[in-house]
Amino acid sequence: MFREAIKVMDCTIRDGGLMNNHQFDLDFVRDVYKAVSESGMDYMEIGYKNSRRMFSAEEYGLWKFCDDEDIYKVIQGVENGAKVSVMVDIGRVDIEDVKPAKESPVDMIRVACYAKDIDKAIAMVNHFHSIGYETTINIMAISRVLENELEEALVQAEKESKADVVYIVDSFGSLYQESVEYLMKKFKSILKTKEVGMHMHNHQQLAFGNTIEGIIHGANYLDATIFGMGRAAGNCHTELLFGFLKNPKFDIRPVLDIIAKRFIPLREKIEWGYVIPYMITGMLDAHPRTAIALRKTDKKENYREFYESLISSDMD
Amino acid sequence: MFREAIKVMDCTIRDGGLMNNHQFDLDFVRDVYKAVSESGMDYMEIGYKNSRRMFSAEEYGLWKFCDDEDIYKVIQGVENGAKVSVMVDIGRVDIEDVKPAKESPVDMIRVACYAKDIDKAIAMVNHFHSIGYETTINIMAISRVLENELEEALVQAEKESKADVVYIVDSFGSLYQESVEYLMKKFKSILKTKEVGMHMHNHQQLAFGNTIEGIIHGANYLDATIFGMGRAAGNCHTELLFGFLKNPKFDIRPVLDIIAKRFIPLREKIEWGYVIPYMITGMLDAHPRTAIALRKTDKKENYREFYESLISSDMD
Repeated sequence: MFREAIKVMDCTIRDGGLMNNHQFDLDFVRDVYKAVSESGMDYMEIGYKNSRRMFSAEEYGLWKFCDDEDIYKVIQGVENGAKVSVMVDIGRVDIEDVKPAKESPVDMIRVACYAKDIDKAIAMVNHFHSIGYETTINIMAISRVLENELEEALVQAEKESKADVVYIVDSFGSLYQESVEYLMKKFKSILKTKEVGMHMHNHQQLAFGNTIEGIIHGANYLDATIFGMGRAAGNCHTELLFGFLKNPKFDIRPVLDIIAKRFIPLREKIEWGYVIPYMITGMLDAHPRTAIALRKTDKKENYREFYESLISSDMD
Repeated sequence: MFREAIKVMDCTIRDGGLMNNHQFDLDFVRDVYKAVSESGMDYMEIGYKNSRRMFSAEEYGLWKFCDDEDIYKVIQGVENGAKVSVMVDIGRVDIEDVKPAKESPVDMIRVACYAKDIDKAIAMVNHFHSIGYETTINIMAISRVLENELEEALVQAEKESKADVVYIVDSFGSLYQESVEYLMKKFKSILKTKEVGMHMHNHQQLAFGNTIEGIIHGANYLDATIFGMGRAAGNCHTELLFGFLKNPKFDIRPVLDIIAKRFIPLREKIEWGYVIPYMITGMLDAHPRTAIALRKTDKKENYREFYESLISSDMD
């Protein structure tokens, strides 16, 4: 698949940060940024821009806040560096603290929201657009949105927002490719002036396959993470995606190197990827938080009990 | 997806045996057979029926040979037991040693072959059919078969063979879902009187997605393995497939139990699943034997060097 319009965004530190409270040291993040840049990826999302008034700097690492001066330390001196993205959640950012794009190392701001919060997301996106940023709307938990709400959100995003991209976010890793095809057709039919993006989770080992399905149906913004690092089962693996994309601008070698050097050792300390309780939440279209909590207890391999507990809670 | 005609075949011990010279002890195999039967799977493939004159019983375990008396020890006393399958390779079986189905614990014999060996496969299939077995032809390494050879093989399989099923075998785990769709349409258009089966490998984390793609396009015989155990990256995970198939005859609980009891500990001893060198062979459509060998050396994490060596050898 070669399509020049395709952009790959690395989300390793941002989505992976959900597994370690964003406590990556600067050296690690710099290594990832170098690998992302050398391999030809278009963007790197470094973390969340959260209010320091809402979250404690003792509990969370730098990439929960993404202060401009910390980002400069990551990117300085890297040649042909990837563009920098940060994510914001509705109601967790101090908008007045965000400088105009010209005065900031950040190129893109992505607004994560549920479909029901589309009005708030549009207001934020339009503000960030007005001060010079590329912007996106990332519609989370899309497997649980009612048809009419989704259509309304997409129509609003198309008509009222300045977003460059609207993302399908499979937060729970529960989509099969049939649903991806269905959603892509709906997104493309409504979002006539926007690009569509894919942010898939790998709870059922379908993040890569679903990203391919998105590409086939016209998605041009693709989220991926190195060695799949991300919340719970993680995301579409960058190294797999590179095997599918035929654009010669992408080079898998720097990604292979940093997996060996950084991510194989890290995986010994942080558990992401294919783990049965994460798989069970994906299969049942549930948030992985219960599975992440289970894995920190001595019942971590009690799969049947965990499965039964989720099935029962669904019946309440 | 509920389709009554769908049959699931467990290949854990047969394909997994390629990683340990088929040296599973009887107790382990019996536990797997119980779980397979309790969970409602239709078949369990226990191993290969190879000639004892060609392979050493000291080097290989029981399931390289699948003597009837060993199979009886696995299945005896298990209620509503799954049907038993064995696989044969062209030129490695003593056909005269295979008793008629009525006198054997085996229900199905699957003949693995390359497309070029279709004549030999058909001869074997027709013999085994004549002595009462269900039979299949499993066309290996399908990603490397030329169009005209594949079509000829399929036409022969349809016209000349008594096989019940013809399988698409993605030996190297290199297929994307576009190719699965393409192959399924070709198989279904030629094999008017046969079922089509799917045996996918997971080198690019696409075994499950590709199996779904096969189902969508009419495949009714689905190979899966518990916790994905199989050669190199392994196969379509049974526990994932059960999440997709809605037939209430399947119960995931016995599969979850045996993963916790047997396969989590086994994975500490035998390396299968998502491992970067296995991924690289899948991406490059190569046999995983070089990757399996690499993982036994102290260069096991030298991904770039391994990648370069495969790329170069492809240019020779």
